[in-house]
Amino acid sequence: MAVCGPMKHLPFAAALGLVLATPSLGEAPPKPAALAPSEIVAAAPKGDWVAIAPDDLLVMDLAPDYRGPSTGSGSRRVVIQLMPPPFSQGWVGNIRKLAAAHWWDGLSVNRVQDNYVVQWGDADGEDKAKARKLPDGLAVVPENEYVAHTSSRSLCYQAFCPDLPSAITMWRTTIGDSTGLSTGFGAGWPLAAEDYIPGKESDSVWPIHCYGMVGVGRNLTPDTGSGAELYTVIGHAPRHLDRNIALVGRVIEGIENLSSLPRGTGALGFYEKAEERTGIVSVRLGNEVAGLPAYEYLSTESQAFARYADARANRRDAFFIRPAGGADICNIPVPVRRVK
Amino acid sequence: MAVCGPMKHLPFAAALGLVLATPSLGEAPPKPAALAPSEIVAAAPKGDWVAIAPDDLLVMDLAPDYRGPSTGSGSRRVVIQLMPPPFSQGWVGNIRKLAAAHWWDGLSVNRVQDNYVVQWGDADGEDKAKARKLPDGLAVVPENEYVAHTSSRSLCYQAFCPDLPSAITMWRTTIGDSTGLSTGFGAGWPLAAEDYIPGKESDSVWPIHCYGMVGVGRNLTPDTGSGAELYTVIGHAPRHLDRNIALVGRVIEGIENLSSLPRGTGALGFYEKAEERTGIVSVRLGNEVAGLPAYEYLSTESQAFARYADARANRRDAFFIRPAGGADICNIPVPVRRVK
Repeated sequence: MAVCGPMKHLPFAAALGLVLATPSLGEAPPKPAALAPSEIVAAAPKGDWVAIAPDDLLVMDLAPDYRGPSTGSGSRRVVIQLMPPPFSQGWVGNIRKLAAAHWWDGLSVNRVQDNYVVQWGDADGEDKAKARKLPDGLAVVPENEYVAHTSSRSLCYQAFCPDLPSAITMWRTTIGDSTGLSTGFGAGWPLAAEDYIPGKESDSVWPIHCYGMVGVGRNLTPDTGSGAELYTVIGHAPRHLDRNIALVGRVIEGIENLSSLPRGTGALGFYEKAEERTGIVSVRLGNEVAGLPAYEYLSTESQAFARYADARANRRDAFFIRPAGGADICNIPVPVRRVK
Repeated sequence: MAVCGPMKHLPFAAALGLVLATPSLGEAPPKPAALAPSEIVAAAPKGDWVAIAPDDLLVMDLAPDYRGPSTGSGSRRVVIQLMPPPFSQGWVGNIRKLAAAHWWDGLSVNRVQDNYVVQWGDADGEDKAKARKLPDGLAVVPENEYVAHTSSRSLCYQAFCPDLPSAITMWRTTIGDSTGLSTGFGAGWPLAAEDYIPGKESDSVWPIHCYGMVGVGRNLTPDTGSGAELYTVIGHAPRHLDRNIALVGRVIEGIENLSSLPRGTGALGFYEKAEERTGIVSVRLGNEVAGLPAYEYLSTESQAFARYADARANRRDAFFIRPAGGADICNIPVPVRRVK
């Protein structure tokens, strides 16, 4: 039986005091304000933010649409953060090679399935006569790489090591697995592990399918895909894909340029006509892109993140009358921002 | 502590035998095929489907976009099923009056916030000088109507009455509430209740915010909204809105006509310019719409639904190598189809 429900929480009200104005002498301390999650993030100290290296970014520029190049985020650009070790590095290495070879340039977004995924790559990839040749030296990655075989204690992430004094404990969520799964955040990413049992460490941890996560399209097992065919989640978290497909990153900016594309009317949301596809102008690693802003994410090991996550789970700002008491991990997106 | 993880399951393999070809005499029974969820739904017997009355439908036709009137579902039409008693009937009654008065005609979709909601109504609703007058006789509904104060046993829905022999038991999900929440399906809808405790009935049950659910925009509490301002969920289930806002229905067809709209660039995803809004041509109750197809949903009390839900939680079709062992309730959308 999985353990669920809230676990120990930090004294959030006390922690909140740190970011509120100090009352004047002689006044009673004010009741802590009910900050909205976005306000907690905005007030997080600079030291709680972690820089994302430019070469850990994948920058995809799409062809202009009928509205021209400028949409929600100011361009038809999608910025993806690649996943760090120990996760999915075989596929991430392939993606770096494909980007360095400018392999995706001139290809297209081929599939948009509502409440599921947007997928891009070579529309002719299944046709051997027409398929674009892949670069030499791509790794064939085995299925067991869907999971990082590492001690969850060596990762020392929140839900996975609640007995450690340095750990910020969080509620666990469950997707109802009788074998027991825990979810939590580590190094800025939403992760799952075998359920934590005091005194027993899990030895497998894996990233999970939340909104905006980017994965590697594949055909039937034991094929795991090269990384040339990528997708991102644009609907409710399809957690049934966890451990069945490789996750390699997440969209940190410009997902609206994918999620607002017309849905495909073919099977699985593939476009039926070539002219419906959105062209890819270029895909580059961030260090190849002139003028790219610097990005940073809110450390998931920070007190600010713990307060943010608590506020996502227990909305106490003015609109709300009843805090939920908990939140699905995918409803706690990790804050990412441009460095000012 | 909430109880979570799988509960009792029907012998699904045996049940599956009913929809598979009967083996010839003398042959060993075939191993049950691993049907995909969509195949289980397609094979469900006619008697497992429940007709939706036309006057329980709200039909919204949107102005053509740059692609013309024909998009994914074959038109720029959005079909919404209104919620049945005992849920939200004060607001549903208002919506019936607004539709009968053709109140929404000529108004617009005013807000599209990525991974959250699309909202429509009177863009000038907050401006008393310009706001369109509401019909007379709309009810002012109190906040306690967010929850149906009824015995969960009188609803006799699956997770809420697992001790009853007629009930199909399902796993429960939890959003981590220490007070204990159960979720499950009843009368075709995703619901939550206080956690089921054997011998003790819950007396409050409420609908939950899954993808495509439709709710009533409101301002700060104790305002609960009239129903004139509506939204639908286009992202990961925002469960923190449960019991904080009224749910009145769900989109059963054409949600792509809302979810693929350009995102608004103003605060909360509101459009900044009037010309960005998508016009509403008309909103009608289904019985006022000539030529409307008949719709039906798969009974959530049927064996076919239980098999479908189990298959959503445990994908065993060819693509999958590792069944998840459970699913979030919002990842088990209730199947709805046009009657052939």
